Amino acid sequence: MSDGIKPLLADSICEYKEDVLIPVQEERLRTVVQEMVHSCREASTVDNVGAALIPSKDEIIRILNILQDVLFPGYFGRQELNHSTLEYHLGHEVVELFELLSAQISRSIRHECRRTDSLCVQCVNKGREEALIFCEKLPALRRALANDVRAHYDGDPAAKSLDEIVFSYPGLYAIFVYRVAHELFLRKIPLMPRIMTEHAHSLTGIDIHPGATIGTDFFIDHGTGVVIGETTDIGDRVRIYQGVTLGALSVPRGSEGGNELRGRKRHPTIQDDVTIYAQATILGGQTVIGARCIIGGNVWLTASVPPDTTVLIEAPRHVFKGENHERG
Amino acid sequence: MSDGIKPLLADSICEYKEDVLIPVQEERLRTVVQEMVHSCREASTVDNVGAALIPSKDEIIRILNILQDVLFPGYFGRQELNHSTLEYHLGHEVVELFELLSAQISRSIRHECRRTDSLCVQCVNKGREEALIFCEKLPALRRALANDVRAHYDGDPAAKSLDEIVFSYPGLYAIFVYRVAHELFLRKIPLMPRIMTEHAHSLTGIDIHPGATIGTDFFIDHGTGVVIGETTDIGDRVRIYQGVTLGALSVPRGSEGGNELRGRKRHPTIQDDVTIYAQATILGGQTVIGARCIIGGNVWLTASVPPDTTVLIEAPRHVFKGENHERG
Amino acid sequence: MSDGIKPLLADSICEYKEDVLIPVQEERLRTVVQEMVHSCREASTVDNVGAALIPSKDEIIRILNILQDVLFPGYFGRQELNHSTLEYHLGHEVVELFELLSAQISRSIRHECRRTDSLCVQCVNKGREEALIFCEKLPALRRALANDVRAHYDGDPAAKSLDEIVFSYPGLYAIFVYRVAHELFLRKIPLMPRIMTEHAHSLTGIDIHPGATIGTDFFIDHGTGVVIGETTDIGDRVRIYQGVTLGALSVPRGSEGGNELRGRKRHPTIQDDVTIYAQATILGGQTVIGARCIIGGNVWLTASVPPDTTVLIEAPRHVFKGENHERG
Repeated sequence: MSDGIKPLLADSICEYKEDVLIPVQEERLRTVVQEMVHSCREASTVDNVGAALIPSKDEIIRILNILQDVLFPGYFGRQELNHSTLEYHLGHEVVELFELLSAQISRSIRHECRRTDSLCVQCVNKGREEALIFCEKLPALRRALANDVRAHYDGDPAAKSLDEIVFSYPGLYAIFVYRVAHELFLRKIPLMPRIMTEHAHSLTGIDIHPGATIGTDFFIDHGTGVVIGETTDIGDRVRIYQGVTLGALSVPRGSEGGNELRGRKRHPTIQDDVTIYAQATILGGQTVIGARCIIGGNVWLTASVPPDTTVLIEAPRHVFKGENHERG
Repeated sequence: MSDGIKPLLADSICEYKEDVLIPVQEERLRTVVQEMVHSCREASTVDNVGAALIPSKDEIIRILNILQDVLFPGYFGRQELNHSTLEYHLGHEVVELFELLSAQISRSIRHECRRTDSLCVQCVNKGREEALIFCEKLPALRRALANDVRAHYDGDPAAKSLDEIVFSYPGLYAIFVYRVAHELFLRKIPLMPRIMTEHAHSLTGIDIHPGATIGTDFFIDHGTGVVIGETTDIGDRVRIYQGVTLGALSVPRGSEGGNELRGRKRHPTIQDDVTIYAQATILGGQTVIGARCIIGGNVWLTASVPPDTTVLIEAPRHVFKGENHERG
Repeated sequence: MSDGIKPLLADSICEYKEDVLIPVQEERLRTVVQEMVHSCREASTVDNVGAALIPSKDEIIRILNILQDVLFPGYFGRQELNHSTLEYHLGHEVVELFELLSAQISRSIRHECRRTDSLCVQCVNKGREEALIFCEKLPALRRALANDVRAHYDGDPAAKSLDEIVFSYPGLYAIFVYRVAHELFLRKIPLMPRIMTEHAHSLTGIDIHPGATIGTDFFIDHGTGVVIGETTDIGDRVRIYQGVTLGALSVPRGSEGGNELRGRKRHPTIQDDVTIYAQATILGGQTVIGARCIIGGNVWLTASVPPDTTVLIEAPRHVFKGENHERG
């Protein structure tokens, strides 16, 4: 490593050249490395050293990119597609997808199985079988997403075309990734589904847990700040705006705080044809919003609402101060 | 395709090697591909097969990156710029920009014109003319953005220098992309402007529709969750904080719900020198916030406010529980 | 440049070929370039022409990527790590990190020192020394981040494993970047710390100023829209949910509006073991939230709260309209 350290002077900064990594500095860098190595043997730190290879975030993002092209053919690829060449194109992409999925599912499973040998035939075979099962759901996913696209067009007066929605609507992207991740979540594949939805969260500001259940024709407008928790249940034709939280009630502190809630229904149920406007918050596993309800912006609910109800915040009391106004 | 499928075993997972894609699995993958091809002939699905080549998201992002360097010279490039070499650098970048813009504008137009032949001289020529018209606006855009940078410095006590703002402020990035996209929107270029602003939305959490009208010296602080709708009209020297929505009132359901609102003024008007603090919501096409108003955080407005007015939420009623407190 | 402009026809658009950049168009592009060059000599515009080379955003993001691998070994790299090869891997990465940090710190400092000659030995040497000082903090950062990971697991019932948190939780990513940037901020390195935290802001929607002071075992759930201002002071074991603002009171307008606040304590103090639920807003440099307080969702505070207090919004008054409901 000594050889690696010596010629470190960053030439790109300026023309000034001198071997400035003097022995005392070199010694300090070595000490850092040794402390870091040592800390990987401490129980209190977090690392993945000596464990099986884990899923690759980059490869999982690549899977999502191929899926976007497979599920919306002709929008995101580099070449013009026509019906005569479509089979070759889709065939090629589906095979590549299968290969990538097999590898990442195997890694996800192996990481959990944590066998000491790096060879685990069962994990590889299970990965391939699960990848096939997922691929067989592609045609159904395609139809579900087409319905989501149309729900976006119907719901947003600013939408100029279906193409604009496929190309640029963050709500559609988040729903696409959720629908893919949810299928893997249902098959109990660890790690991958959440890595997928957190990638969508990063790009869109929309945080949908892969465990949530969401019906057809789902529409999310703008979307930044939307949170949909793990055990949320959403019906068909629901519309949601930016900043809406479908969340859990408080998490108690203490050593068992989070653990005793793990696995329970903690998030609300939203029935068919409900609209929830911006920044509304609906909390709790017992909370049911009945069919066709309209929940106004900024509303805060921790109890159920019967079907066909409109809930608005009472005209908020504001204080007006100014030359032209005594009080609003 | 059979040859493509056979050697699929992911070597990278482990040393275990066997030709495990047994015929029944191969058959299942083939069925998936055929169903996907078939679904592209269904009217109910969404694809762009057999249509003209559409704009490329990657190329449009490349256009934004070059524009950032052209409009803020010396900040984002790889080399040191000095006044003697500046002309070569800017000349090179503007020519590249013109070329990329011509191609993407042509594609955007052709996609809408949807002629069956792939050769459409008018679209190509119109793309070049529009690209030129856009380039001629660069000097004015540069001055407008310099004013926005200064508005950020004056508005944020945490700002240490103008450079820090150009480099790292998400509000400035969102405004830069909006000002570019708005010029294309005014020329009625389809798809591209929205792809641009949704890219900025993804990076910043700030969702400005390219159709909005925004005056000089605009300042957005923090910005996550800001929504500025298509028909919003914003004056000069306006300041906006995170989570502010300038939005539309509710969108009625039904087949014509979204359509009957398309094109109408649905979003508010904000006059000169207004400040709108975090999480405030202002809705409706008839709502006018008069000059020099201050709108407090969390305020919710669906009606106009005269000039020089301060609007605050009434001291919110809180419930305090605890050892040291009976009630707040 | 004339030669560069002529063959511009975008071949990729279609087969149609003609030299369509007629002289009048070429002239118009030339005029644009000259105006842009001219504008770089105007005092009113913003550029970095003729100044020292400034930090590179791309290189700073590369530094963060290496740091993520060094601080969480075995999660983000391409190869399986075991204890026997760990030293080589960490040694290699720490040396690369040192080199990159030296260069970017030198650039940040030089930009501020603004000497006219491009050679400034002091800046280079200072960059190397500061890079070493930073590297020596890596073992302590590793322990601090391990505690943050565990705080996330204890706080979120949806978390399935520590690995899931390291891989995909945006709150952990934002805290990792904050802890790194804060060390550089404490050493008064300009520009870099803010470029780092704004990169995390872009990926996570969580905006933590590098100047904030944050204790151990910090947990941010979901995170989109969180804002933590420059002079915020946060104790140990604090939990924060999406949309929480720890901000400043209003910034007065006028030429000295922002300037007179620069450097003062403008943001709140949050003591140990406080929980702050979604969308709560706490403002002002004098505001102190006492130890073990629970601040409910949507609460809006501009005054201090004693220890062990729970603050909730009063059951909000809603208007219920519907077939099954007279009034809620």
